[in-house]
Amino acid sequence: MITVSIVGVGLIGGSFGLALREAGFAGRLLGVSSPKTIAEARARGAIDEGVSLEAACAQADLIYLSGPIHSILETIPKLDPLVKPGALVTDAGSTKGLIVAAAREHLKRAQFLGGHPMAGKESRGVASAEPGLFRHRPYIVCPSAAADLETAAAREFLRWIDCLGAECRVMNAEQHDRIVALSSHLPQLLSTTLAEALASHPDADAIAGAAGPGLVDSTRLALSSWDIWRDILETNKPSIDAALDLFEAHLANARRQLSEGSLERSFESGRQFASRLRK
Amino acid sequence: MITVSIVGVGLIGGSFGLALREAGFAGRLLGVSSPKTIAEARARGAIDEGVSLEAACAQADLIYLSGPIHSILETIPKLDPLVKPGALVTDAGSTKGLIVAAAREHLKRAQFLGGHPMAGKESRGVASAEPGLFRHRPYIVCPSAAADLETAAAREFLRWIDCLGAECRVMNAEQHDRIVALSSHLPQLLSTTLAEALASHPDADAIAGAAGPGLVDSTRLALSSWDIWRDILETNKPSIDAALDLFEAHLANARRQLSEGSLERSFESGRQFASRLRK
Repeated sequence: MITVSIVGVGLIGGSFGLALREAGFAGRLLGVSSPKTIAEARARGAIDEGVSLEAACAQADLIYLSGPIHSILETIPKLDPLVKPGALVTDAGSTKGLIVAAAREHLKRAQFLGGHPMAGKESRGVASAEPGLFRHRPYIVCPSAAADLETAAAREFLRWIDCLGAECRVMNAEQHDRIVALSSHLPQLLSTTLAEALASHPDADAIAGAAGPGLVDSTRLALSSWDIWRDILETNKPSIDAALDLFEAHLANARRQLSEGSLERSFESGRQFASRLRK
Repeated sequence: MITVSIVGVGLIGGSFGLALREAGFAGRLLGVSSPKTIAEARARGAIDEGVSLEAACAQADLIYLSGPIHSILETIPKLDPLVKPGALVTDAGSTKGLIVAAAREHLKRAQFLGGHPMAGKESRGVASAEPGLFRHRPYIVCPSAAADLETAAAREFLRWIDCLGAECRVMNAEQHDRIVALSSHLPQLLSTTLAEALASHPDADAIAGAAGPGLVDSTRLALSSWDIWRDILETNKPSIDAALDLFEAHLANARRQLSEGSLERSFESGRQFASRLRK
């Protein structure tokens, strides 16, 4: 990789640029974003230069689509006439089904390999970017076929993911969307619903005044921006619905166990799973 | 206060001893716990000496009951013949209704003032105790009548709470139990149920392998010990039931809004409440 173009230099795109640099990438980093973001990203060292999408694609060996999902979906159909043959296009969108399908339909001259770094925080924008954002975090890649991982461009990209300290996980787009509905979209909706339910309660002031660290943790995801979540929720409805069905069934079961005094086994099973996430 | 006796020198009791010392308490700190815990608590400086409950009560100006709820409920009926007249008995139990009622019934020669520091973490025991545990955290006190806060012993205790950096909140036991059902017990049950539901899923391995920071935060409470939660859940059933009813109704509403594409307002309301908890 000599030239990497980051299309959408926000938290994830900016962190990708900073992380590549920290990992020793000596090539050129181009960015496509608003003039204000480009100035901020250059000042932070996340990119070398801001260019148009056309210029970014003409030069790039790797095109990293890291805007919101709707903007990735709008960009993909424009790319084919612009890219260098042999380039790799990847993305960092939080759902994969529609994105991978759009790439399959529209991208012929370059390879597409969908991706999703399981990294993030409640603050947004390149100002919040950090080179260590991907470190020790899963980085899901979604090949359409196993051979997609064996091209020279894909192998080089996967080597860089490894250099960033991320842990590569391979699954197809459909499996990805089902998994993240459970591991990410469900926790988001629970946190938002908890915070919203408490906000609407007549005792909201007393609840806020007496909040301990548990409530603070439980509502961190509720700080997330609707701008990002609108796209995610819109593009993963069936899997999210299934995840909510699962949760509601288990909550009903927990209530029954609570009234019967038999919740211990569920508590222990949850504790073991939570411990496992920390290993 | 010349002598403080901590009955149950675990995470909370040990932190109370350490915090008092750090805040300049120059009196004597006695502890009632198992020999192993006493040795550990002395080594850490959380107490000066381990004694029997009888000796602890005979000398103490403040008796701090910081064992599990069932042990507080077992201890209270024994205290009246043992205490110094004019002493203050307080507790750190996570529910207040039964404890305050027991104290009202059994304690005549000393004053009782129920308390609940909204501090804690997933690890337990005096090994996890820290002097800063109460700092910037709400510390709820539950007087049976306003005059309970005006005695010399209560005023001195409240001054020390202030010295520990905690933020005192006053409410009665019934209100406390309703509030913490919403702010603490509901988040605990959601975290446990989420972790337990994912643990039982056929894709549990892939979910664990792809977990991002959101899932890690959302399952922190699920690490909590059943030993502690059994007592809490058993002693606050009606309020927990009401909190779960509230959550289920709001989750059903969120699902409707999700399918109608009208979730934005709820998302925003949750975001504002979550922000408020961080101010």
